[in-house]
Amino acid sequence: MSSTAGQVIRCKAAVSWEAGKPLVIEEVDVAPPQKMEVRLKILFTSLCHTDVYFWEAKGQTPLFPRIFGHEAGGIVESVGEGVTDLQPGDHVLPMFTGECKECRHCKSTESNMCDLLRINTDRGVMIDDGKTRFSKNGQPIYHFLGTSTFSEYTVVHVGCVAKINPAAPLEKVCVLSCGISTGLGATLNVARPTKGSTVAIFGLGAVGLAAAEGARISGASRIIGIDLNPNRFEDAKKFGVTEFVNPKDHDKPVQQVLAEMTDGGVDRSVECTGNVDAMISAFECVHDGWGVAVLVGVPNKDDAFKTHPVNLLNERTLKGTFFGNYKPRSDIPSVVEKYMNKELELDKFITHHVGFSEINKAFDLMLKGEGLRCIINMEA
Amino acid sequence: MSSTAGQVIRCKAAVSWEAGKPLVIEEVDVAPPQKMEVRLKILFTSLCHTDVYFWEAKGQTPLFPRIFGHEAGGIVESVGEGVTDLQPGDHVLPMFTGECKECRHCKSTESNMCDLLRINTDRGVMIDDGKTRFSKNGQPIYHFLGTSTFSEYTVVHVGCVAKINPAAPLEKVCVLSCGISTGLGATLNVARPTKGSTVAIFGLGAVGLAAAEGARISGASRIIGIDLNPNRFEDAKKFGVTEFVNPKDHDKPVQQVLAEMTDGGVDRSVECTGNVDAMISAFECVHDGWGVAVLVGVPNKDDAFKTHPVNLLNERTLKGTFFGNYKPRSDIPSVVEKYMNKELELDKFITHHVGFSEINKAFDLMLKGEGLRCIINMEA
Ligand SMILES: NC(=O)c1ccc[n+]([C@@H]2O[C@H](COP(=O)([O-])OP(=O)(O)OC[C@H]3O[C@@H](n4cnc5c(N)ncnc54)[C@H](O)[C@@H]3O)[C@@H](O)[C@H]2O)c1
Ligand SMILES: NC(=O)c1ccc[n+]([C@@H]2O[C@H](COP(=O)([O-])OP(=O)(O)OC[C@H]3O[C@@H](n4cnc5c(N)ncnc54)[C@H](O)[C@@H]3O)[C@@H](O)[C@H]2O)c1
Ligand SMILES: [Zn+2]
Ligand SMILES: [Zn+2]
Ligand SMILES: [Zn+2]
Ligand SMILES: [Zn+2]
Repeated sequence: MSSTAGQVIRCKAAVSWEAGKPLVIEEVDVAPPQKMEVRLKILFTSLCHTDVYFWEAKGQTPLFPRIFGHEAGGIVESVGEGVTDLQPGDHVLPMFTGECKECRHCKSTESNMCDLLRINTDRGVMIDDGKTRFSKNGQPIYHFLGTSTFSEYTVVHVGCVAKINPAAPLEKVCVLSCGISTGLGATLNVARPTKGSTVAIFGLGAVGLAAAEGARISGASRIIGIDLNPNRFEDAKKFGVTEFVNPKDHDKPVQQVLAEMTDGGVDRSVECTGNVDAMISAFECVHDGWGVAVLVGVPNKDDAFKTHPVNLLNERTLKGTFFGNYKPRSDIPSVVEKYMNKELELDKFITHHVGFSEINKAFDLMLKGEGLRCIINMEA
Repeated sequence: MSSTAGQVIRCKAAVSWEAGKPLVIEEVDVAPPQKMEVRLKILFTSLCHTDVYFWEAKGQTPLFPRIFGHEAGGIVESVGEGVTDLQPGDHVLPMFTGECKECRHCKSTESNMCDLLRINTDRGVMIDDGKTRFSKNGQPIYHFLGTSTFSEYTVVHVGCVAKINPAAPLEKVCVLSCGISTGLGATLNVARPTKGSTVAIFGLGAVGLAAAEGARISGASRIIGIDLNPNRFEDAKKFGVTEFVNPKDHDKPVQQVLAEMTDGGVDRSVECTGNVDAMISAFECVHDGWGVAVLVGVPNKDDAFKTHPVNLLNERTLKGTFFGNYKPRSDIPSVVEKYMNKELELDKFITHHVGFSEINKAFDLMLKGEGLRCIINMEA
C-alpha cells in the first residue's frame, strides 16, 4: 500500500476553465478511487484531436472547468473497493472506452462496444456516483472521457485501464491509448489485408498513418495514400506509403483514378478523414469480388453515406470500426507487445516533446497541423 | 461416343418469338458444341423470375427470337474441342454464370464473379465465335444467359456446367441452378449466422425462403420473416420462419420494430426483395458491434442506398452477394451433396409440375405469384 492510498492527493493538473482558452496548471485535489475505480499516477500523456475538439467546444456541449487528456501511460497508485485485477505499481494505459467483461458486447468475440463503459464524450463525472474526483478549493472539476490524463494523478474506472508489460517505455506506448491503435486495428483487425495486397488509405493524419503502419505490418505490396493536403505526403513515406493521390490533381472521381492504377480497384481501403465524400470514394474504390472498405473517420451529424446498391451486390464489403475493434483491456496489452518485439514502429509517430508546464505548446502544434504526436512529460 | 456427337440435333424447344407472347414449342436445330463447349440433354428445368423479366422485356433490351431457361438438370450428350473434365453421360446442372478457373476472380478464394463467364443478360450468342447454336430453317435463335434450358438439347460453355453426383434426382436438384442457391449461399457463405442467433429475412419469395433455409441449417434460434405480402407468411412457416413482420402493420420504420423485438437488433439480415428501402432497413436492423447485413435483391438502375455513416462506425457490416458467393463449378456439387445427405430440404420449394408442352402454364403461375418453383418435365 502506498502512503497516499485512501487520502486526497493534491497535485498539478492542467485545467481548462473556458472553451478555447489556454489551460492553466493548477494545484487540484484528487479524491481516492471509489468502488471499481483506480487512481493512476500519469507519467506521460499525448494530445489527440478529440481533446482539441472538446476544448474548442464548437458544436460539442461545453462542460467546464474540465481536465482533458486521454492518451497516456502511468502507474497504479491505489485501487478502490472491488478491484482485484490491478494493484499499486502496475503499469497501465488509461482508456477512453472501456470493457466491463460482463455485457453482450464484452462477451461477443466481435464487438468492443461495451454497453456500460462505451465512450461517452458528454459525461464529466464518474459513473458509479455521478460525482467528480477532481476539485479545487471545493469546486468540482469535470472529467473527460473518463480518463483526464492532463493531471499528475487521475481516477479511472477499472474497466478503462489496460495493464501492460512493465518493461514497456511509457513515453512511447502512451500513444497506443487512442488514435494509433484505432488506425492500426482498422487495418489489422477489420480490413485484414493479405500479404502482397494493395491497400488505399484515405487521410494521412495520425490515424491514417497508423492504418498504413498496419498495412506495412500485414505485408501489403502497395500502400496508396490519398489526401487533399500534399504536405502529408512527405511524412507518409516513412510509414511505407508507396504511392500518393491528391484528389485535387484529377478531374475524375478519385475512386476511378484508383481503379485505373490497380486494374479494377484496391483490395482493401481504410478511410481516416471523417469526410463523407472520402468515405464513399473509399468504398467505391475497392475491387469487386473481394474488396473490403473500412470507415474510421467520425462524420458530421447530418452526413449521408450514399452508393448504388450494385456496388455492394458486386461483392464489396463495407464495415466501420470503433477503436480499431480492439477490446481495451483484453487486446491493448498485446499491441504493446507488438511494439516490444519490434513488429510495430511507434517512434515515427512521435514528432514533438514538451514538459507538462508547456502543455499549451502541444495545443498550438496541433492547431497548426504540425507533426503527429506531441508527448507531454508530466515530470518536466 | 453417342451416335449424335458431331451432328446437328433436331429437337423440341420452347421459342419466344416476341416479348410477352406465349412460347411456342418448335422443332429447332442444335449445332454440335464447339471449342470448350458441351451439348446437354435437358431432362428437367424450372422457371425463375429472371426468365419472366427478360421474356416481358420491359426495361430490358429485347432480343428475339430467344430460348429462355436457366435452372435445369441434364446429361452431357457430347463435348467440343478442348473439353477434358466432362464426358458424355455426366449428370450436370447448367449455370447462368461461369467459372473459367483462370482469371483473378476464379483464383481468388473470395470471389465468384469470373471475368470471362460472369452473367451477361444481353448476350444472345456463344462467346467463342459470337454465333448461336440454335436455328430454325436457318434462322438463328438467340441464347439466354448462356444456358437456354427450355430446349431438349442446348449448348453451354464448359465453364458454365457443374458436374454433380449421378445419384442425385435431377427433377429436384435442378432448382439449385439459380435462386435457391443464391438465397442459401447468401446465408451460409456470406451472412454466416452462428448457432442460436437471430436472423431477419426481408422478402419471402423463393430466394428469401432459401435464405431462411440457410438460417435453419445454421441453427438460428429465431428467423424473422419480413414481407409486404401477408400471403407469404403461411408458406414461410414450412421454412422454419418463426416470426413475421409486415412493415405495413406498423407506423414506425421496420428496423425499429425489429430492434424492439430483439433487444437492439438482429445478428444477421438477408435482403431478398430488390427494393432499396428494404435494403436500407435490412442494414439498419442489425445489432451494433457484430451485426452483418447481406443484400441479394437486384435493385433498379437509379436506386441509391443511403444511411448515416455512424451506423457503420458502430461496427455493422454491409455486404452484397451474387449467386450466394458460390463458385458454380467448384461449389454447387457440394450443395447437391447437402441435399443428398438430407441437410438441405428442397422438396418444399417445388410447388408445381408441368410437362414441357404446357410450359406457358409455368409462366402463368409465376405471373399470378402462385407457388415457388414449377418443375418442367422435358419428356412429358
Ligand atoms: N473511430 C475511432 O475510434 C477514432 C479514433 C480517433 C480518431 N478518429 C477519427 O479519425 C479521423 C482521422 O483522425 P486524425 O487525427 O488522423 O485526423 P487529421 O485531421 O490529422 O487527418 C485527417 C486527414 O484527412 C485529410 N482529408 C480530409 N478530407 C479528405 C478528403 N475528402 N479526401 C482525402 N483526404 C482528406 C486531411 O487533409 C487530413 O490530412 C477523424 O475523423 C477522427 O475523428 C476515429
Ligand atoms: N443476386 C442474385 O444472384 C440473385 C439471383 C436470383 C434472384 N435475385 C433477386 O432476389 C430478389 C428476390 O427474388 P425472388 O425470386 O424471391 O422474388 P419474389 O418477387 O418472389 O419475392 C420478393 C418478395 O419481396 C417482397 N417485398 C418487396 N418489397 C418489399 C419491402 N419493401 N419490404 C418487405 N418485403 C418486400 C415481395 O412482397 C415478395 O414477396 C429479386 O430482386 C431477384 O432479382 C438475385
Ligand atoms: Zn461491457
Ligand atoms: Zn483520441
Ligand atoms: Zn474466371
Ligand atoms: Zn434465376
